[in-house]
Amino acid sequence: MRTHFCGLVDEALIGQTVTLCGWADVARDLGGLCFIDLRDHEGIVQIVAEPDAATAGNAEVIAAAAAVGYEDCLRITGVVRARHAVNDKIRTGKVEVVATKIELLNKAEPLPFHAHENPGEDIRLKYRYLDLRTPAMQRKMRTRTRLVSALRHYLDARGFQDIETPILTKATPEGARDFLVPARMHPGEFYALPQSPQLFKQILMMAGFDRYYQIARCFRDEALRADRQLEFTQLDMEFAWVAERDVQDLTEDMIRHVFREVMDVELAAQFPRMTYAEAMRRYGSDKPDLRIALEFVDVAELVKGCEFKVFTDAADDADGRVVALRIPGGASLSRKQIDEYAAHAAKYGAKGVAYVKLDEAGAINSPIAKFFSEDAFKALLEAIGLQNGDIAFFGAGKYKTVSDFMGALRLKAGKDFNLVADGWAPLWVTDFPMFEWDEEEGRYVALHHPFTAPAVDSIEDLRANAKTAVSRGYDMVLNGNEIGGGSIRIHNSAMQSAVFELLGIGAEEAAGKFGFLLDALKYGAPPHGGIAFGIDRIAALMAGSESIRDVIAFPKTTTAQCLMTDAPSPIPDAQLAEVHVQVRPKA
Amino acid sequence: MRTHFCGLVDEALIGQTVTLCGWADVARDLGGLCFIDLRDHEGIVQIVAEPDAATAGNAEVIAAAAAVGYEDCLRITGVVRARHAVNDKIRTGKVEVVATKIELLNKAEPLPFHAHENPGEDIRLKYRYLDLRTPAMQRKMRTRTRLVSALRHYLDARGFQDIETPILTKATPEGARDFLVPARMHPGEFYALPQSPQLFKQILMMAGFDRYYQIARCFRDEALRADRQLEFTQLDMEFAWVAERDVQDLTEDMIRHVFREVMDVELAAQFPRMTYAEAMRRYGSDKPDLRIALEFVDVAELVKGCEFKVFTDAADDADGRVVALRIPGGASLSRKQIDEYAAHAAKYGAKGVAYVKLDEAGAINSPIAKFFSEDAFKALLEAIGLQNGDIAFFGAGKYKTVSDFMGALRLKAGKDFNLVADGWAPLWVTDFPMFEWDEEEGRYVALHHPFTAPAVDSIEDLRANAKTAVSRGYDMVLNGNEIGGGSIRIHNSAMQSAVFELLGIGAEEAAGKFGFLLDALKYGAPPHGGIAFGIDRIAALMAGSESIRDVIAFPKTTTAQCLMTDAPSPIPDAQLAEVHVQVRPKA
Repeated sequence: MRTHFCGLVDEALIGQTVTLCGWADVARDLGGLCFIDLRDHEGIVQIVAEPDAATAGNAEVIAAAAAVGYEDCLRITGVVRARHAVNDKIRTGKVEVVATKIELLNKAEPLPFHAHENPGEDIRLKYRYLDLRTPAMQRKMRTRTRLVSALRHYLDARGFQDIETPILTKATPEGARDFLVPARMHPGEFYALPQSPQLFKQILMMAGFDRYYQIARCFRDEALRADRQLEFTQLDMEFAWVAERDVQDLTEDMIRHVFREVMDVELAAQFPRMTYAEAMRRYGSDKPDLRIALEFVDVAELVKGCEFKVFTDAADDADGRVVALRIPGGASLSRKQIDEYAAHAAKYGAKGVAYVKLDEAGAINSPIAKFFSEDAFKALLEAIGLQNGDIAFFGAGKYKTVSDFMGALRLKAGKDFNLVADGWAPLWVTDFPMFEWDEEEGRYVALHHPFTAPAVDSIEDLRANAKTAVSRGYDMVLNGNEIGGGSIRIHNSAMQSAVFELLGIGAEEAAGKFGFLLDALKYGAPPHGGIAFGIDRIAALMAGSESIRDVIAFPKTTTAQCLMTDAPSPIPDAQLAEVHVQVRPKA
Repeated sequence: MRTHFCGLVDEALIGQTVTLCGWADVARDLGGLCFIDLRDHEGIVQIVAEPDAATAGNAEVIAAAAAVGYEDCLRITGVVRARHAVNDKIRTGKVEVVATKIELLNKAEPLPFHAHENPGEDIRLKYRYLDLRTPAMQRKMRTRTRLVSALRHYLDARGFQDIETPILTKATPEGARDFLVPARMHPGEFYALPQSPQLFKQILMMAGFDRYYQIARCFRDEALRADRQLEFTQLDMEFAWVAERDVQDLTEDMIRHVFREVMDVELAAQFPRMTYAEAMRRYGSDKPDLRIALEFVDVAELVKGCEFKVFTDAADDADGRVVALRIPGGASLSRKQIDEYAAHAAKYGAKGVAYVKLDEAGAINSPIAKFFSEDAFKALLEAIGLQNGDIAFFGAGKYKTVSDFMGALRLKAGKDFNLVADGWAPLWVTDFPMFEWDEEEGRYVALHHPFTAPAVDSIEDLRANAKTAVSRGYDMVLNGNEIGGGSIRIHNSAMQSAVFELLGIGAEEAAGKFGFLLDALKYGAPPHGGIAFGIDRIAALMAGSESIRDVIAFPKTTTAQCLMTDAPSPIPDAQLAEVHVQVRPKA
């Protein structure tokens, strides 16, 4: 139907006749002379409908052009010529196409919104096809396509097999909530949608596939926090006969490769490596944003002698922490702004934050100075490295809580004071704790998942040191986002049973939920490990989007709806009867 | 953990020390001298544990080897040497590895079955990981991986964008039964799993993506006939601004490409093309297996004068058909075998089949000869081309029914008489009827789907000629399997509404189910079309498997169960309450 793409018409075509298909981005009728900006997925080219130079004819084409409206679907034939008013902003800006034929393929009704008008997200989602037609969204979606394609080509070239795992599978209530699917052929029974292909990919290693990957859809029926989706996509990978560095080295190289291919960016030749303990100590986060140069200073030893009970209690607590965060130039913060920082910290569990300001003249402003001797306070400020014009915030309390809220303050300060460097800051975080004590449930929960191998050799060792045991898990972090997470897995049936037991999953429950895994581990399971990368998040980062919704063609809202198709929706009772369920009466 | 793959150790490595990981395929202890066949995904290599030539030592290694059992997971270091008894069947057959270290990575318990014992499918599916470890299954699964990879590389190089569409979407009760997913955040409402991404891919064309593909999971809750799965995989494609041949020419070239890449097979440079009418007339099938040279002969005109009412009724019926199928060499069929043919035809709607045998001496044996004059019967046999030693079957009745059952006989005869040629016989079938009259429902149903464009220009034309209207649909057929099906779509809202109406879908119902499509068609939808290929079927054909279960890592049984994970399964009522459903009491 066409000879060229609109966005690729250039000077090399001058004098040639081309046929183009696309949408009318803008159409201007200057009375007997019309301009149309014709747009396809490659870009925009200017079409001119004007009287023929020789005959003064061409009335039919001019009339057709004059009738064109926004988003009409057109096929236009014409001759390419050089343009008087060059537009340097677009590739086609040096040419225009003088129309000899204009066909209206499909008339567009008046649009529900126009992209130029900065419409709200709801209307953009309802008319998603109009939103996706915009060059900005086309570019973002294409970034995702290129990312996925680059990943696949990298892995295909290295002997990884792309293997599909089931979407209709068994409910495994560990972790997030499952989506359930009633089974028509088995009254009263249900399939579940997979939260990840975790167990299937481990089974694939036991099945001899050696190197596996899948761009896999995963499902979690969780409260939709800020930027989550019911279904999301991960690059799921697993390797047989490997240790941590085998997985890390290959995937680090892979991520460098895709940034080079898609973004023309060269990431660090070696990603920094940091233990979980170090990340928490320096940045108060297990996914530190290393673009922000701010670091914590632990000051428990320096505050032990002061008279501020909040500090001394925390300093004397084996599980406590007293930490300072210096913000260069932060002395400009007003009392009100400091309160905002305190409020932000409170969201992450702070009961309060102390601070000290050193104004440009070196005068101290701090509600806690009075609790210190002059020398002790001076020593404290020296340890923090406070300069004239700076502020430092203090947090004191339980180690984890202090780290969390001071980590949140670090991010806020980084943003507020333009301390976020340009570029890309990847790193590996390793040596995570094996377990976390869940106060609410009164039991250990797995920090990664229950199939992660502990970094100990014996079951006895693990049982004796469960609280402090470190796992063989690892995360890849980029600009403060966990973009990948994985581990070496347990490949021994007895060790897997012991971990289930420590997590409060009894032998009977384990057999019911994970019996096939425990079985499979008995028939010569090889050592294996893997990782999964969040495709939506990486694509959003590459596209420069705050929200993953920009890189998902048909996303759902935070209330779990598709505004375009109107899903979910009520279903006739007769149809529910076929699958042996009914809607529950309201309690 | 290893330096080489087992299956790739060859003469180039003689004298070198290698470390291998794998499973013990076979282990033989000859008393102080042990052999282990060590297997990984690349193949098998022979390991020898023997006394050291110089020291007569090596007791530890020999003891470790002697303890090895089937499927133990091992790491073995040793020196490659030439082998005395060369095994030409395997790549590693000229070498063996003399072990200097044997590590037992994971002991295998006694196996539930052994691959050499030809186990039943149920036990293979329960212990799928053991089944998949066998070289035969590894080869089949790798064929699928290579197929998918070759398809992707072909399309990525041609500007197709791989775009994901939702799995949690809206129920659309046209066609097969939907899988339903209760929505936790919307009590009483449900998502449905997509039967295909059909509407989403059309929307993507309206959204300006121009060329789309996806290796997409699709879901149909149908009775599991012979070789169906609840979830299956299709290569889903859509093109904007195209006509039929654009889609067909590119995908034909693509299929040629993947057969070249994966199978080293060169398919026909131009696939034969055949209308639906011609395919039914010559082969009684819309997916004829062209490897079988047998063709129908229509004989209505030649039987009009006979006294066999079954023939004359059909011959006089405008919607009737009398057809003969000659089977060379078929005179050898016994009375009992002929009855089996009749029974086979009956499954496809035959009330009976007539036949005529011509024995090697030229004697006629036919229950219907008596209804004909000698001359008329001779003329009939001549028209059929019956030779000595042949049989011909006759079918008479309604056109469609006769075509169906005689088509089934053609396939059976092809198989029984070894008339299926080797190799690959692809073709395009085109010009399908737009509608089929459904006697049961008393309305038209779409032969492809309701979004297929009719091959007419106006709505009036379509309404006036609905019964005979031809669609712009097309199928790619390979060796008697429909491996791909597609069409040019309706891109005009009024035409789409008219087709819905002809299918008995009223304006209100259409707005409820397909409102977003009807809307989208109003805002400048471009002409578009596409196709979908059945990946499971193509992979099975390439792998030489009768069943698609051989090329799906974790398939379900014909009773819709996963025997490995034991899905589906009962769910606690409290969990059902969270999603606002309950199991329905038995009626």
